Amino acid sequence: MLNSADLSDRNIISTRSFSRERIDKILSFAEKLEPVARKEARCDILDGKVMALLFFEPSTRTKMSFETAMIRLGGKVINMGSVEASSVAKGETLADTVRVISGYADAIVLRHPREGAALMASEFASVPIINAGDGAGHHPTQTLLDLYTIRRESHLDDLTITLAGDLKYGRTVHSLCYALSNYGARINLVSPPELRMPERILEEMDRRRIEINIFDSLEAAVKDSDILYMTRIQRERFPDPAEFSKVSKEMRVTKKLLENVRPDLKVMHPLPRVDEILPEVDSTPHACYFRQAFYGVPVRMAVLSMAMGIDDIDPETCIRRI
Amino acid sequence: MLNSADLSDRNIISTRSFSRERIDKILSFAEKLEPVARKEARCDILDGKVMALLFFEPSTRTKMSFETAMIRLGGKVINMGSVEASSVAKGETLADTVRVISGYADAIVLRHPREGAALMASEFASVPIINAGDGAGHHPTQTLLDLYTIRRESHLDDLTITLAGDLKYGRTVHSLCYALSNYGARINLVSPPELRMPERILEEMDRRRIEINIFDSLEAAVKDSDILYMTRIQRERFPDPAEFSKVSKEMRVTKKLLENVRPDLKVMHPLPRVDEILPEVDSTPHACYFRQAFYGVPVRMAVLSMAMGIDDIDPETCIRRI
Amino acid sequence: MLNSADLSDRNIISTRSFSRERIDKILSFAEKLEPVARKEARCDILDGKVMALLFFEPSTRTKMSFETAMIRLGGKVINMGSVEASSVAKGETLADTVRVISGYADAIVLRHPREGAALMASEFASVPIINAGDGAGHHPTQTLLDLYTIRRESHLDDLTITLAGDLKYGRTVHSLCYALSNYGARINLVSPPELRMPERILEEMDRRRIEINIFDSLEAAVKDSDILYMTRIQRERFPDPAEFSKVSKEMRVTKKLLENVRPDLKVMHPLPRVDEILPEVDSTPHACYFRQAFYGVPVRMAVLSMAMGIDDIDPETCIRRI
Repeated sequence: MLNSADLSDRNIISTRSFSRERIDKILSFAEKLEPVARKEARCDILDGKVMALLFFEPSTRTKMSFETAMIRLGGKVINMGSVEASSVAKGETLADTVRVISGYADAIVLRHPREGAALMASEFASVPIINAGDGAGHHPTQTLLDLYTIRRESHLDDLTITLAGDLKYGRTVHSLCYALSNYGARINLVSPPELRMPERILEEMDRRRIEINIFDSLEAAVKDSDILYMTRIQRERFPDPAEFSKVSKEMRVTKKLLENVRPDLKVMHPLPRVDEILPEVDSTPHACYFRQAFYGVPVRMAVLSMAMGIDDIDPETCIRRI
Repeated sequence: MLNSADLSDRNIISTRSFSRERIDKILSFAEKLEPVARKEARCDILDGKVMALLFFEPSTRTKMSFETAMIRLGGKVINMGSVEASSVAKGETLADTVRVISGYADAIVLRHPREGAALMASEFASVPIINAGDGAGHHPTQTLLDLYTIRRESHLDDLTITLAGDLKYGRTVHSLCYALSNYGARINLVSPPELRMPERILEEMDRRRIEINIFDSLEAAVKDSDILYMTRIQRERFPDPAEFSKVSKEMRVTKKLLENVRPDLKVMHPLPRVDEILPEVDSTPHACYFRQAFYGVPVRMAVLSMAMGIDDIDPETCIRRI
Repeated sequence: MLNSADLSDRNIISTRSFSRERIDKILSFAEKLEPVARKEARCDILDGKVMALLFFEPSTRTKMSFETAMIRLGGKVINMGSVEASSVAKGETLADTVRVISGYADAIVLRHPREGAALMASEFASVPIINAGDGAGHHPTQTLLDLYTIRRESHLDDLTITLAGDLKYGRTVHSLCYALSNYGARINLVSPPELRMPERILEEMDRRRIEINIFDSLEAAVKDSDILYMTRIQRERFPDPAEFSKVSKEMRVTKKLLENVRPDLKVMHPLPRVDEILPEVDSTPHACYFRQAFYGVPVRMAVLSMAMGIDDIDPETCIRRI
């Protein structure tokens, strides 16, 4: 049994307080595990371990990515299934649920619509909690896979990145700003006026001496960028359909837009996309959003292993090519 | 292939007819497997076996507990999922469903809203059926885990137990009475007048020379008890909300209530609880309901193993500490 | 990584173009794997492999059969779950979904309500696609298990088979006609006038010199048959309930119907059945529909193995009796 000091170290609630060292350690571990995620090697370090999925709202992609990470390392999965079917529907508190599930699993992956749910759960669980998204709060493994993608496909130091789309409600871009501030990035922002990056984040980036530039057009912003990080603008944010239509047309990645960018610009997107990136972009060398989705697997492999007490491996002895 | 005589022995439909010897055998087997459930040891006796979950009504806790038991012994799980999605929705009979699933799995864990469903299913299945609750009928693994909890945390012989809450519709307390009658318990009953223990059970306990005492107040009942077994009173049982409110206040375990009990009294609850037990009780030495939920794992490990032909193990050779 | 030529070979989209050689190869492989499906042997050839289930409409039986096939060969399963819970609900295209899931799994089993979905998916996936039913289109593993059943329980060459019930919308009987045309069968057809076999299939069978005979009564059709293949007539096809009632009574397999058939006639049904076959038939030697459902396991074992690059095994070295 882990004592609670150990345990709080193993929880992954938010990357906000992660140091550059802690991030680099996770990303390097993920890189060692990537051949396993790529189906080119075997590594059974989680053999005998059980991951519980408690998804209080659906998120298929995140769920399948965690499952893949767990089982490709030899581990097993139990799944609460939909909330309607669960004890929660009978009035059980989250505290009681995680206390019971702690008796079954070696780690709990929690998705919850309420901000702060993961932190609260970690106070009652006797196994590590991995936050897989808590409403407007955090989604640390998304941030880590974004960083991993940037490191793998471009470079984390001295980065110029354009964040575009919904910068107001987009949890992923907020967390990414904080994480990138460890590496001294230049951040370009483009969004409809209604969906600007919140002031508190701009101020915090200023305090951290991160250069932020706000652009009116995607074309201008992306010109000297290493990375273009697109996000989806939700129709529900706009009471006026005509306004939504106008805005979403301006915030669209096309082949034409990419004519004047750096040859090594990479386009990222947390997926699912709707029409923020046209299908014609998929076959360009700039498209890296499908690889980004794949990188969720090695990153979650590293996060799960660390939660279950394995902080690193020696690839020579642990990884078997197939 | 098991012949049908063997098979009927391997079905777990109800504990009502279980002898003390049969119960003790299961509980002792579960005790050997507890280190595996506790994540302190490995034991792959169900490697290569497949358990099918047929849950015709949701019961997440029971499902996850069976899954955990199965996979920690090296077995695998297939799951029918929700009824709406199944062949049942197209008009298939339970008999046909279990005949087909018998071709896939080594044992079937069946949850069904209709009393008698598990017994009926066992007549058509060619693999063992484990009843995971059949409506107002039986839920034998719940009864076995209750007995296991009493044995582990207190003692089965010469027991004084208080059953409180909904004693009319509460399937678990009925089955527990029958099972405890093998051990000669003294049983105290406390419930709202509308939810009294049915006469037929009182008469049967009388025939079995079990001492039953009916109390008006929880405080009086619990005074000399070894175990307080609380159950949830469902709002739907009371047409008058005021009456429900009054009743549920009287049937509540508080720190104050526990001031005058035996120091070794253990409070049990089949969970989920709503407010029958206040959170302030959780940190007292009396609270044992979360451990009780955990004990479902070793008990279901024993039941599954026995259903699949393994009646006992030698821990020396089968269990590997980790 | 497979190149795309290899990959298109590994996709299973439809059996329509399968040669007799290709079918025989799959069925012979399935036969070698049958002891594993029968729980009499172990064979872990898919150890380390991951199958993704993408079921855009529910089909529990098919799902559980694929799962059983995969896990009994040592493989693992990830499951998208219901569409409502998935990225599809947020507007993601099937192309994007299969591209992302290709990064997680070694093969994708796809069920989709839209005809042609599997073929389209195979153009975007970088792992093999196995079509588990695409609306009015194809369901190749159903056809293969039907052929396997005929081969195991009767004989494929020189076969006389009666197809009965809904011959208009019944996808399985259409595919079966095409597949059987490889073996030169005589095919008897019986259906309500509203649900006759489509002209285009009759013409195609004529081109392939397959003898087709159309009967008015089930009794006459079945008289000299080796196989009676029943299908379910859906109530929704008949606006007039009285007409449905009349038709479904005429299309019913009873003990009486089977009094004048060949002693070795086998009755097949893709299941679930409602009342096309009375329960009294289940205990006759003619009933083979439950074994047919079981044969889905060895057939899907063969299909999955071939999709993942294993085209055959040497039972001496791969299969271990238990």
